[in-house]
Amino acid sequence: MGDVPPSHPRYYSLMARKRLVDAAAKGMLADSALIAHGRGEAFDYLLGERTCDAARLAIAETAARLRTAKNCVISVNGNTVALAGCQLIACAAILNCPIEVNIYYRTPERMEALLSELNGMRSEAAELYPNLSEQISQVEILGDKPDDIIPKLEGPRRFCCSKGIGRADTVLVPLEDGDRCEALVAMGKTVCVIDLNPMSRTARTATVTIVDELSRCVVQLLSDLMENSVSTISEWDNDENLQDSLNVMLGNLVES
Amino acid sequence: MGDVPPSHPRYYSLMARKRLVDAAAKGMLADSALIAHGRGEAFDYLLGERTCDAARLAIAETAARLRTAKNCVISVNGNTVALAGCQLIACAAILNCPIEVNIYYRTPERMEALLSELNGMRSEAAELYPNLSEQISQVEILGDKPDDIIPKLEGPRRFCCSKGIGRADTVLVPLEDGDRCEALVAMGKTVCVIDLNPMSRTARTATVTIVDELSRCVVQLLSDLMENSVSTISEWDNDENLQDSLNVMLGNLVES
Repeated sequence: MGDVPPSHPRYYSLMARKRLVDAAAKGMLADSALIAHGRGEAFDYLLGERTCDAARLAIAETAARLRTAKNCVISVNGNTVALAGCQLIACAAILNCPIEVNIYYRTPERMEALLSELNGMRSEAAELYPNLSEQISQVEILGDKPDDIIPKLEGPRRFCCSKGIGRADTVLVPLEDGDRCEALVAMGKTVCVIDLNPMSRTARTATVTIVDELSRCVVQLLSDLMENSVSTISEWDNDENLQDSLNVMLGNLVES
Repeated sequence: MGDVPPSHPRYYSLMARKRLVDAAAKGMLADSALIAHGRGEAFDYLLGERTCDAARLAIAETAARLRTAKNCVISVNGNTVALAGCQLIACAAILNCPIEVNIYYRTPERMEALLSELNGMRSEAAELYPNLSEQISQVEILGDKPDDIIPKLEGPRRFCCSKGIGRADTVLVPLEDGDRCEALVAMGKTVCVIDLNPMSRTARTATVTIVDELSRCVVQLLSDLMENSVSTISEWDNDENLQDSLNVMLGNLVES
């Protein structure tokens, strides 16, 4: 990957790529995780590599849903930990909610690598957000001992934790797969997802879809959560918001 | 990745992914190769995962340019070998031209892995195309001892072979990088590329750009080369062809 100066026009994209490659070397990722990241890169390229207005609204709506939830949880996989682990720990600290490691290709080695990486990220998160350091140390990181299941799913990906996804009424799941998104919605949960492809099954099934690059939008989500303003859940039209994101991509393609 | 039945709607896409993951395990790929493949997957998704009419024309034009070249060469990198090595050996057999391994992140280990993989693919290619078996055994595979340079490039990627890229008037370079595509065009060569992103610098710089998935279009290219019809180079408008491919993506996005 080599050294890239911060002045490089694609610095953030190349740094994200580096974090993924490093995570793969640490055993945190499934074989196809880098390919999935590349697919996201292409959609972000179509978005113009910036947070569009529709995504900005979806981030605010997600912040409101999380703040007003009775029990919320942040579900993470390998790519999510690599790209935005620190920021999501800070989000969980503000929300006083657990983070649950919940992965598609579950192996003991990957679970161990991810739990250890996340726990190690607490100190980095506390340095970045010193006002939250006390709450950060108390964020519960789940996934090690699943004791509950997500109905309508097969295989190891159906396992979850009763203290996390099991009892949550609202779930933030960046980079979710379509089947599991459908299963969570079928359980009656509010499902907020982050997905760069506005046409994916996940994007179309979720309650609120943020069409944006993960590490970029999570910084904004954290900032929204830090504000003290009272959030009100809106009459949210997710299909309309997805169409607005798609229109940004169409506009960029037409201009090119 | 698991076992996928051929009836699966995304069978070919998943098989391509498997070939890439296997190639990574064999040390054939650079760190970012899987990410690059994922970017391609997203553009192929926008194309509808089929060869569009514009790509069909670009394939025929490429076949004509290769057939009428004085000296042509097929330049390959890791992803190309993994996805279409056998078919490209067969193309080289018909064209009586060499294949040159020419990679961006050049290390002795990767070069060795790629040259060994390509040489091993000869027998598979001969089984697939028994009529070509004699010529297949004689295809020269270059790259081991570069003795020439591509001007205007820096770093190890400037090295090439005088019997391959060096003396060729026409180069087929699937999955090329933008800098090198520009440098080859600046040398006065006819450069035919395969690139799923019609807006990339490579796509815009090349003489003929096939906007299509590599393993899919190479099968068609081979079929075109096998035909005995006399090919005539047309007045080729690459920009117009790129716009036609982009319009297919736009059409699919609007419909979605």
